[in-house]
Amino acid sequence: DRPLALIAGPCQLENLDHARMLAHRIAEAADAAGLPWIFKASYDKANRSSLSGRRGLGIDEGLGILARIREEFGVPVLTDVHAPDQCARAAEAVDVLQIPAFLSRQTDLLLAAGETGAAINVKKGQFLAPWDMANVADKIASTGNARILLCERGASFGYNMLVSDMRSLPIMARTGWPVVFDATHSVQLPGGQGGSSGGQREFVEPLARAAVAVGCAAVFIETHEAPDTAPSDGPNMVPIDRLPALLDGLAALDRLTKGRG
Amino acid sequence: DRPLALIAGPCQLENLDHARMLAHRIAEAADAAGLPWIFKASYDKANRSSLSGRRGLGIDEGLGILARIREEFGVPVLTDVHAPDQCARAAEAVDVLQIPAFLSRQTDLLLAAGETGAAINVKKGQFLAPWDMANVADKIASTGNARILLCERGASFGYNMLVSDMRSLPIMARTGWPVVFDATHSVQLPGGQGGSSGGQREFVEPLARAAVAVGCAAVFIETHEAPDTAPSDGPNMVPIDRLPALLDGLAALDRLTKGRG
Amino acid sequence: DRPLALIAGPCQLENLDHARMLAHRIAEAADAAGLPWIFKASYDKANRSSLSGRRGLGIDEGLGILARIREEFGVPVLTDVHAPDQCARAAEAVDVLQIPAFLSRQTDLLLAAGETGAAINVKKGQFLAPWDMANVADKIASTGNARILLCERGASFGYNMLVSDMRSLPIMARTGWPVVFDATHSVQLPGGQGGSSGGQREFVEPLARAAVAVGCAAVFIETHEAPDTAPSDGPNMVPIDRLPALLDGLAALDRLTKGRG
Amino acid sequence: DRPLALIAGPCQLENLDHARMLAHRIAEAADAAGLPWIFKASYDKANRSSLSGRRGLGIDEGLGILARIREEFGVPVLTDVHAPDQCARAAEAVDVLQIPAFLSRQTDLLLAAGETGAAINVKKGQFLAPWDMANVADKIASTGNARILLCERGASFGYNMLVSDMRSLPIMARTGWPVVFDATHSVQLPGGQGGSSGGQREFVEPLARAAVAVGCAAVFIETHEAPDTAPSDGPNMVPIDRLPALLDGLAALDRLTKGRG
Repeated sequence: DRPLALIAGPCQLENLDHARMLAHRIAEAADAAGLPWIFKASYDKANRSSLSGRRGLGIDEGLGILARIREEFGVPVLTDVHAPDQCARAAEAVDVLQIPAFLSRQTDLLLAAGETGAAINVKKGQFLAPWDMANVADKIASTGNARILLCERGASFGYNMLVSDMRSLPIMARTGWPVVFDATHSVQLPGGQGGSSGGQREFVEPLARAAVAVGCAAVFIETHEAPDTAPSDGPNMVPIDRLPALLDGLAALDRLTKGRG
Repeated sequence: DRPLALIAGPCQLENLDHARMLAHRIAEAADAAGLPWIFKASYDKANRSSLSGRRGLGIDEGLGILARIREEFGVPVLTDVHAPDQCARAAEAVDVLQIPAFLSRQTDLLLAAGETGAAINVKKGQFLAPWDMANVADKIASTGNARILLCERGASFGYNMLVSDMRSLPIMARTGWPVVFDATHSVQLPGGQGGSSGGQREFVEPLARAAVAVGCAAVFIETHEAPDTAPSDGPNMVPIDRLPALLDGLAALDRLTKGRG
Repeated sequence: DRPLALIAGPCQLENLDHARMLAHRIAEAADAAGLPWIFKASYDKANRSSLSGRRGLGIDEGLGILARIREEFGVPVLTDVHAPDQCARAAEAVDVLQIPAFLSRQTDLLLAAGETGAAINVKKGQFLAPWDMANVADKIASTGNARILLCERGASFGYNMLVSDMRSLPIMARTGWPVVFDATHSVQLPGGQGGSSGGQREFVEPLARAAVAVGCAAVFIETHEAPDTAPSDGPNMVPIDRLPALLDGLAALDRLTKGRG
Repeated sequence: DRPLALIAGPCQLENLDHARMLAHRIAEAADAAGLPWIFKASYDKANRSSLSGRRGLGIDEGLGILARIREEFGVPVLTDVHAPDQCARAAEAVDVLQIPAFLSRQTDLLLAAGETGAAINVKKGQFLAPWDMANVADKIASTGNARILLCERGASFGYNMLVSDMRSLPIMARTGWPVVFDATHSVQLPGGQGGSSGGQREFVEPLARAAVAVGCAAVFIETHEAPDTAPSDGPNMVPIDRLPALLDGLAALDRLTKGRG
């Protein structure tokens, strides 16, 4: 079993300096914990709860910043795509294309992403069972792409709430693809603030610990220097100054779980 | 309160003669029951459970058939769109654009659809609460479009199952927009057959009756002459020869419910 | 199909005069609507959310009042039992013993109730599937008792919320036993007010209408002259002065549904 | 933080020799892992899915065996009680009284259990939110009893399935009472085999690991030498020969989690 990887970054790109600052601090924390990592940020928030939610920098400026981060930090970068025609462009700037959970059944998007040859991280739809992801992975694999990640990010549980079913990690792992646990969106309260989603940042650590103890391949954690004023997902992002301790704990758990401790 | 309307047709277009045959038989049943109706069919099934599911005729041939049905039968027609760039084209051929449930939060699609000026039927995401649909409608209404329909089609309830919460009808009606009950997809068992979704056709009638007694504006029912061999959604489509009795019952319930009986 | 029956009364007994007053008003409303009815009230609320919730008058005084109502009004009466040793005593004073939802799997209680020979109304546990109720009914029927009612009162849907799955009515009806829809507890928000359960009185009517249009045998509705100051279940009880119009609507729906309209 | 404790034993008592054999093997495994432990077994299964499920030895013989195990092994013992009048008797033979999940809101049972002065392990109802357990604990604490354990055993998630929400562990811990994770019943598929409940033994280990990494006080694991022929809960019991490795893993995780590793 390979050691735990980290996917981390802000929810959405704000500007180059901000991305640099966060990349720098994440790199320090990940290096200290001994975790290989991937920088994550979105150039467009295409499915905000309401029209008043900030969308982001757009694809041109966003991909430019991501390419710079990749080059300056020597770190792989990940971004999410929302339409088939974005895939090829995004794949020039980033290493991993991410399929948003709501779009996890959109065949054309999955195929276009797969065809780029980039690694693909597919979020499991909140409306899907973990075993349904085998069909999703097969759509991507049909393009010849064999770099697929399946990502748990919570299942619908009544209204405006998600639940993280830890059984989904071993169930999705049966496909043979590495499984990622998204500890940020799993603690979202979708639509829970009327015009935007709420969140429960205090549960990022317990859920991430649970997932690592079960044996996932990677954790996904969004972070920000001031989550409460961030343009999106503030309620569930981890403050960057708490990241080092969180990662240290996860890395130790992972070593123990995978017999390298 | 206006009388109940019907949205009906096959899940996906097969060919012109097939569409004509179904339109003819639906027209007979709807006329006999005194229900105004809209012909529904899809030109592309963009989110099949697995890659092996049939996609459909494609946008060119599909819109051509829909335009013919509209002309020959003098009936409004509805189809679903999956990307912003399909909206304007589809709006030339059809009267109502439908937003699929999985895409009900995709801002660009909602705006592109709204901007066509066509009526828009938005399916409520299986992952949304009924009150979340106010934000969805507001996105469309921001384009100046005031012909919006909100459609209940079941909420995620554990894995591979939906539940129809009849409270959602009055809750969505608080927005002021007419509310549609989709009796076909509400009885879907998503992913329940491994490579495709299962369904429980036997519950179409009880759920449709429940929704009409609560006071919805329209019901959505997919129908086919041989559902078990249809290319998609067979398990939850109503055989066309059972449609007349079903509609008679719904029409009588609607007259009673709306005080016109 | 027999006409709709009504089970109605206050959540808990307060005193004889209060029970008389409500029985009188329910009788007027039910008679006007042409509905046979059963008076319902509890002598003990054995599972309040918190210790501070009022328990009720106790079994001696409670059964005494119920026996008086039965005699004075010539109406069958129903009460709920919470332990095997209460069944025989309660069956002397009432016609229908009710098994609370939380206790719907307690074998000894089901057997003791069945052995009295009284009619038994079993609430479906919030944690049960409708098909699970066949085993519950079989436990009662094993005593030779063939007067069993199965009652839908909502299924757990996330935390602090229930959902009414209208499919449960035809599913439970497959057992051959009459099916009751409890429109009062189905709109409960369990534990939703911290120390007590909340409720959504505004959905009693739509859900009751839905259930009657599906074809249930009886509806269960709690009512009070001043729900907001009632000792329990206030948020989901219907004010008694709104009962006549509610019942008229349900009776008309039932006649139509059962082909007697 | 005190080290992890183990609650373990067969689902139901079969006879003294069988209980001895299992106690012996659990003691070996727990001692090897350095975990203090409590022997658990039921004398009555009072809420079987169907009447044909085996009930158990009964209270007299059952408590006799439990008292012998306590004496012979010098280990605390736990059993579940189902009615108020069983509490005092059971408390003479055992150290911990357990309140079944379905009965977690029954006030009289909680009070009678509390009044014995024994430690009380309350299973969280499948229909309760974790924060609802504060009211449950308060009912017990009102008797002056300050030895309360709160136990997660899964929440209803659609029909015939439970989900383990790991957030419930820190939420229940806010009450100040120790929190137990029941890894056996959390993997139950309630009613999932028609006349009895199914289960997913393969998820006991991942869920127990998740709970320990989150920081629970104790884990509850049912075990048997031949689960598939056990009289109850076979599908979710762990074979006794796999217990040593499971406990070793949990103990190491607990030491790491609580900073004693």
